[in-house]
Amino acid sequence: MAERRLKFWGWGYDDERVTVDERKALRAFYAGRFGVDGFSETPEPRLEEFELPAPRLAPPAALAGICSSDPHDRLVHALGKSFPDTVRMFARQVPNLPDVVAFPNSEEEVVRVLDWADGASAAVIPFGGGSSVVGGVEAAVGGDFKGVVTLSMVGLDKIVEIDRLSRAARIQAGIRGPALEAQLKPHGLTLRHFPQSFELATLGGWIATRSGGHYATLYTHIDDFVESLRAITPAGSMESRRLPGSGAGPSPDRMLIGSEGALGVITEAWMRLQDRPSFRASASVGFKDFFAGAKAVRALVQSGLNPGNCRLIDATEALVTQVNDGSQHVLVLGFESADHPVDDRMARALEIVRDFGGNVADDEAAGDNRAGAVGAWRQAFLRMPYYREVLTGWGIIFDTFETAITWDRFEEFHAGVMARVQAALAEVSGSPGTITCRFTHVYADGPAPYYSFHCLGRQDSLLDQWWTLKRAASDAVIDLGGTITHHHAVGRDHMPWYERQRPPLFGAALKAAKGALDPNGILNPGVLVP
Amino acid sequence: MAERRLKFWGWGYDDERVTVDERKALRAFYAGRFGVDGFSETPEPRLEEFELPAPRLAPPAALAGICSSDPHDRLVHALGKSFPDTVRMFARQVPNLPDVVAFPNSEEEVVRVLDWADGASAAVIPFGGGSSVVGGVEAAVGGDFKGVVTLSMVGLDKIVEIDRLSRAARIQAGIRGPALEAQLKPHGLTLRHFPQSFELATLGGWIATRSGGHYATLYTHIDDFVESLRAITPAGSMESRRLPGSGAGPSPDRMLIGSEGALGVITEAWMRLQDRPSFRASASVGFKDFFAGAKAVRALVQSGLNPGNCRLIDATEALVTQVNDGSQHVLVLGFESADHPVDDRMARALEIVRDFGGNVADDEAAGDNRAGAVGAWRQAFLRMPYYREVLTGWGIIFDTFETAITWDRFEEFHAGVMARVQAALAEVSGSPGTITCRFTHVYADGPAPYYSFHCLGRQDSLLDQWWTLKRAASDAVIDLGGTITHHHAVGRDHMPWYERQRPPLFGAALKAAKGALDPNGILNPGVLVP
Repeated sequence: MAERRLKFWGWGYDDERVTVDERKALRAFYAGRFGVDGFSETPEPRLEEFELPAPRLAPPAALAGICSSDPHDRLVHALGKSFPDTVRMFARQVPNLPDVVAFPNSEEEVVRVLDWADGASAAVIPFGGGSSVVGGVEAAVGGDFKGVVTLSMVGLDKIVEIDRLSRAARIQAGIRGPALEAQLKPHGLTLRHFPQSFELATLGGWIATRSGGHYATLYTHIDDFVESLRAITPAGSMESRRLPGSGAGPSPDRMLIGSEGALGVITEAWMRLQDRPSFRASASVGFKDFFAGAKAVRALVQSGLNPGNCRLIDATEALVTQVNDGSQHVLVLGFESADHPVDDRMARALEIVRDFGGNVADDEAAGDNRAGAVGAWRQAFLRMPYYREVLTGWGIIFDTFETAITWDRFEEFHAGVMARVQAALAEVSGSPGTITCRFTHVYADGPAPYYSFHCLGRQDSLLDQWWTLKRAASDAVIDLGGTITHHHAVGRDHMPWYERQRPPLFGAALKAAKGALDPNGILNPGVLVP
Repeated sequence: MAERRLKFWGWGYDDERVTVDERKALRAFYAGRFGVDGFSETPEPRLEEFELPAPRLAPPAALAGICSSDPHDRLVHALGKSFPDTVRMFARQVPNLPDVVAFPNSEEEVVRVLDWADGASAAVIPFGGGSSVVGGVEAAVGGDFKGVVTLSMVGLDKIVEIDRLSRAARIQAGIRGPALEAQLKPHGLTLRHFPQSFELATLGGWIATRSGGHYATLYTHIDDFVESLRAITPAGSMESRRLPGSGAGPSPDRMLIGSEGALGVITEAWMRLQDRPSFRASASVGFKDFFAGAKAVRALVQSGLNPGNCRLIDATEALVTQVNDGSQHVLVLGFESADHPVDDRMARALEIVRDFGGNVADDEAAGDNRAGAVGAWRQAFLRMPYYREVLTGWGIIFDTFETAITWDRFEEFHAGVMARVQAALAEVSGSPGTITCRFTHVYADGPAPYYSFHCLGRQDSLLDQWWTLKRAASDAVIDLGGTITHHHAVGRDHMPWYERQRPPLFGAALKAAKGALDPNGILNPGVLVP
């Protein structure tokens, strides 16, 4: 609670706004795209505009000091950071609020909060950075709970121990990205996990949601960097052994990784770290044909060169993110190493992409990853979550979804997704909207395409319009064989499609496992286990 | 059943024996080590020496055609291929036999066998190649079962479909290593999974036991090559979606991978494949000090060079396996690629190992992996399972165990394991036995050491002596922080230590999950879920 105050209705901290220049550029760009002069603007929400119901629960005296029912605390923990979350904030309508927000500073306090909630028939929502874009932390718990306690983990924010020899650290789950990297830096180490949520999100949140990270190949999810986990459940604590590898039955860690707060509260993890890279090479490569670019990426990822960055951006997205003028699809390539030069790998990678018609940009073949097309994209990527606070006020529907698909089905899948979402955009907005695609991660057996779409909505029905689009996108992804999420998680928004995707018997097994760990079903109800 | 007949009492097929020359070399070597003139020999077991109890179960008429209670079939499916398994065969004492061995040729027949067994209160033991060295397929099921049906999967031995673009294939679970590779070869593809069990073991067995494979780094277990799985459980079938990657909740595949037949019968898998390598470099490096070798391996594996082979063999094991004269510890290094030369990586790797005092053998820096020290080791590795049939008859206790440990604890761990097993060897045999070590796989955060031990036992108490050694080794591994198995699996033999290793609550969750998939607990009872 002593922390810098978060913005309850948008990304970042309370004292941060999109700059005047950014705002001007966004207005010019989107007005141009929609052929309008400007936008009517809903002003940003203020705390006093929200009428909050009285909390249904009060903590016992022993926990009062770490609990809050302050309106700002309740609002900031009511929703995540998705488009519909922001819309509801701009509409001053937050349907579900936690009654109490608990801020434990130790694992023991986590235990005591769980014990209290379990006894009081309250649901508990574990909350990290609150950057969920899938309804993962929304206090919509259904059922017969007597209240909702949201459990903010940000008080558990220490690096407890560093094992330099094994290049690993024992880290509390509530630490946010910047603090984590700052504390590792003096040791020459880094987690190198830089999702778009980096600034706000926590280690525990990344693990609970199978966050997608920095590396385009090999280590795509945070899963691979988890050496062991510790978690608190209503039935007790569980801790896996620190092991570099094991074959002793199904992995206990793999049950908790991706459990989205429904099986236990992750309190700390031993994480595998990296040395800070000192050798780098980056390049950008243009393609006239998107599928030719995809074929080049396939050859690259099957070559075993394992580029750290391998992001194919379609021409429209390149335009929107100001990587280029939209005349070409762009493949952003990067290699890095703390041990050896990587120029030879880049040279071979560029040979491969040229075989597929790629045009290597001269100025960047040996470039800096903060300059040129790479740098432009990187900057846009980091500012994107902030832009939503402006675009939502203007009634612009702007959202993303991401998936993965094997190469054999990719072209048909991509064409189908694009067509179905474009049709939905036209239906919703009355004029063609825009959907763009990039690859965030790639595998030898297929890419992870990430789609962004936008259109001009109507201020009075943004939520309905968005659901129409979300349903079209999700149906397309599942009908055409993809995963409902590659790294954004399931949350509440994806549940209907997750249930279509996962084997029903796995759902039954997961439900049974939850029954053993959380007999009263108080942990993040409605997520993963219906 | 039309298959070439397996040897029921040892490794390989019925028509195979250790050669006369191998036998001579083994006798000279071990007689020298134990300071004896020769060995009294228990003759190899013959089928007619076994008195088998009558089967307690008979299949229904509809399944009679795929079921057998023939004595050879029952014996060959009674045990795996561990040292105590072979001892019991040489003692003509097999305490637990399946009543019926079922040989389904289709998934539908698997379903029918499970339905029959479930209704008949019979336990079902899924059986692949039968190469378990941990009691994983022994018909020791406890409880109140009316009989045991062992389910041989080798009739499901087809590659159903190849997706060349995604470099993946849909493969039935009962296919053995050689057939799998032979069918992939015309497509220029390979699974490149070459465990010591390669000749006999099946794809489904590898997946169910988290088999350790060809690659020393990056892709150490078969886990990483599983794209999707299909399994039959008593509660129904389950099939995961083919996806290159996903973040949709805990991975369904990761629940079945390592489930050792206790959760379901894996019937097929989509597997990620490799192109056949055309560029190779291998080298062997000598070290005067084993821990200096280990430090070199640590630096190498943390460098990101990712050698395909990185096997540190201690001097005694180098002597026993005829890699050298035992004067040096040996690091066998290899790089391979289907896309690009790997000499630059080898050059950098050799720089690193020289920094730790490694002596690079001149004749091999650009060598062939079937020649020199590498070739000698490889040959010994492949013949090892056969040697047990000779050594057991001579009363020589010869076994292995494997684990993994983080680098910070490795030296103390290794010293402790060596000392405790050496003490047990002395206790058991009255004279110092031998324990050796190699690394089979290595991770940035620690090695996977593989220990081999031998001593001269007494023919009348080999099983007791072995258990004394096994307990000493397993206690040491668990007391000192390792995993009870890196890639041999848990089976029945490791259960007491597995229960010490895994978080109790994970055990409860797994038991609950099993309850959902296998309500009557008929699948491989006693394995993983006590």
